[in-house]
Amino acid sequence: MIYLTRRERFSAAHKLYREEWSDEKNEEVFGKCSNPNWHGHNYVLYVTVNGDVDPETGFVMNLKKMKKIITEHIIDKVDHKNLNLDVDFMKDKMPSTENIAIEIFKILEPVFKEKKVNLHSVRLHETENNFVEYFGK
Amino acid sequence: MIYLTRRERFSAAHKLYREEWSDEKNEEVFGKCSNPNWHGHNYVLYVTVNGDVDPETGFVMNLKKMKKIITEHIIDKVDHKNLNLDVDFMKDKMPSTENIAIEIFKILEPVFKEKKVNLHSVRLHETENNFVEYFGK
Amino acid sequence: MIYLTRRERFSAAHKLYREEWSDEKNEEVFGKCSNPNWHGHNYVLYVTVNGDVDPETGFVMNLKKMKKIITEHIIDKVDHKNLNLDVDFMKDKMPSTENIAIEIFKILEPVFKEKKVNLHSVRLHETENNFVEYFGK
Amino acid sequence: MIYLTRRERFSAAHKLYREEWSDEKNEEVFGKCSNPNWHGHNYVLYVTVNGDVDPETGFVMNLKKMKKIITEHIIDKVDHKNLNLDVDFMKDKMPSTENIAIEIFKILEPVFKEKKVNLHSVRLHETENNFVEYFGK
Amino acid sequence: MIYLTRRERFSAAHKLYREEWSDEKNEEVFGKCSNPNWHGHNYVLYVTVNGDVDPETGFVMNLKKMKKIITEHIIDKVDHKNLNLDVDFMKDKMPSTENIAIEIFKILEPVFKEKKVNLHSVRLHETENNFVEYFGK
Amino acid sequence: MIYLTRRERFSAAHKLYREEWSDEKNEEVFGKCSNPNWHGHNYVLYVTVNGDVDPETGFVMNLKKMKKIITEHIIDKVDHKNLNLDVDFMKDKMPSTENIAIEIFKILEPVFKEKKVNLHSVRLHETENNFVEYFGK
Repeated sequence: MIYLTRRERFSAAHKLYREEWSDEKNEEVFGKCSNPNWHGHNYVLYVTVNGDVDPETGFVMNLKKMKKIITEHIIDKVDHKNLNLDVDFMKDKMPSTENIAIEIFKILEPVFKEKKVNLHSVRLHETENNFVEYFGK
Repeated sequence: MIYLTRRERFSAAHKLYREEWSDEKNEEVFGKCSNPNWHGHNYVLYVTVNGDVDPETGFVMNLKKMKKIITEHIIDKVDHKNLNLDVDFMKDKMPSTENIAIEIFKILEPVFKEKKVNLHSVRLHETENNFVEYFGK
Repeated sequence: MIYLTRRERFSAAHKLYREEWSDEKNEEVFGKCSNPNWHGHNYVLYVTVNGDVDPETGFVMNLKKMKKIITEHIIDKVDHKNLNLDVDFMKDKMPSTENIAIEIFKILEPVFKEKKVNLHSVRLHETENNFVEYFGK
Repeated sequence: MIYLTRRERFSAAHKLYREEWSDEKNEEVFGKCSNPNWHGHNYVLYVTVNGDVDPETGFVMNLKKMKKIITEHIIDKVDHKNLNLDVDFMKDKMPSTENIAIEIFKILEPVFKEKKVNLHSVRLHETENNFVEYFGK
Repeated sequence: MIYLTRRERFSAAHKLYREEWSDEKNEEVFGKCSNPNWHGHNYVLYVTVNGDVDPETGFVMNLKKMKKIITEHIIDKVDHKNLNLDVDFMKDKMPSTENIAIEIFKILEPVFKEKKVNLHSVRLHETENNFVEYFGK
Repeated sequence: MIYLTRRERFSAAHKLYREEWSDEKNEEVFGKCSNPNWHGHNYVLYVTVNGDVDPETGFVMNLKKMKKIITEHIIDKVDHKNLNLDVDFMKDKMPSTENIAIEIFKILEPVFKEKKVNLHSVRLHETENNFVEYFGK
């Protein structure tokens, strides 16, 4: 059993804001992240799968296929997008780093499973100073 | 004459979009950057001043003061903001990395001059793969 | 259950030196790190908490609060300090990266627990080439 | 129990290519990595050991000794080498990142055990966008 | 006048070796880099152009076009290649970082000129510890 | 004419403190950097030489020799040292990043000149957020 990680990146806008709260409460809870006109980040995404090494290729999984899966299912949907408005899988969800990582995991797990590969974790960096990691449970 | 550089960061939303153009033309010229609902970046800003070393302190300029100037005049105005909508100094300007860097230089140069310090350059990174540098002429 | 990590930094002096040993023995065991006149590092600290996501905020924990806790309980006590002489929680302890990380964990764990947050790990980098990680057991 | 990690680097050539396959099949499976005339990487290796802290030194293990072990048993054998042709421990093995990491683990584990230190994991980065991690089982 | 830089990467094999010299002399001059069976690197390439900002786009040059030029004229020719054997523009040239950077500059300068853009410099990193920069004169 | 840069690192303690000033004045001018018991940094040093490429080797200068010069003349004198107390070339000088870089330049310039190589600049990073660069005039 070995772990293989692929790094991808996307740039997106978002805000942390609850419509049912006042601007003051949003500011109090979410601080600068509640700016009504949005802000954004260069997100860095690490996807880790694990499994046995194929004796012919030496691979847990072909990296080209891994990159293709992540690009088609995630990056194409979030890169240069607004996470609150443009992204189907974030609809009606607060676009915190935690929630984005969890939704990415939920999407990728069955896709990898179809390829007989086990998704181990999703790590998502919002800035150089904070990131989250989700293992699916 | 020695050169002193301070790094600061800000996270902001923007879009590259000309209102007088069609969506198609905007897409053709600006690509994904023209997404009407915005996207964003973690910008990294390097400000470089130059001058002689003060014999008492060993400094070209006190870094605390340098940080304070950059924070008050730039970072507080752009961090967690929308560069098209929220930032006075970008009003009616295309928020390309080039234009942001030029405007930052124009703001900081007279502020440093008042402190008898010469602003040498402003370098601005939009992603890990592209950045601009402006020397004021 | 998701894991949230915050990065902070501090610059400190230290030496690895046992008073009851000769200079030769200190040099033999600790090498350059035993220099009697101290040396120092830019330490990089990663603090990881875990827990469930709050459905209202999308947060495991508010990052502003997390930063405040780490700053008040750790960074303010070690930044621009001498780890052998100035830091109460390192008193009579060898300031190896291992011991610093363990002490940081011991301090932070009950503080996070009071906020109903579980401290998962403390990772401490001494240079770009070595770091330690402690999980509290 | 605490975890100590040392980073080392090596630059090597390799190709992913099965002699019993046609060039076309190699190209199909391994893509650009099958170039018959080789290509190469700056590999980054992270070796992690774990154990209790020695009360006298504050160390899990002396970093100088750790570096010496990794250098003698691994780096000297792979740095500025061809992983397919020059490296005894990769003989007849596909030099995928997965397989290199597994072989490094197999070599280092008994060497550390002799020093009463437990090898926890080997992480190997091939590029800034992909890496593998192996825990020995 | 503003400077715009694009970063690209390529992984390649090479050796520093003069056929007319003995192995001993090659080893003496080029050290480990003379290994007959090659070694390799993850090269990092920074291409900088300069010019005035287009008032409509805010660009010195469209980054998509810049990336396309660098990819077609350089990256496609060197990525996952052997710099001594596979690369037309390095034929009969010692593939030192210096020479690779100079040849890249010579190729890119007229291509950018055709687009009315001035190539300012090419910076090429061989490892995290060494790089060269060439300004065309 | 091409520019070749070598990166080296050293870890050192220092304080910014003028004996003839009160503690209060030192604190006012130098802030946390005036801590009487020292603090320290992982300094990162970039040394750049320039010259023509040797047609036989493809080198401006042999990197092994360049590393040896920097190590012997600088790194061995400052690594794991106290910049105020242990370093001959900093005696009676305020160990600001500016002054350290200037002194390094003064030492290295004649050593490189003896090897017929021109020292172009010395860049010294004190933290990830600030650095200085000196060109010798």
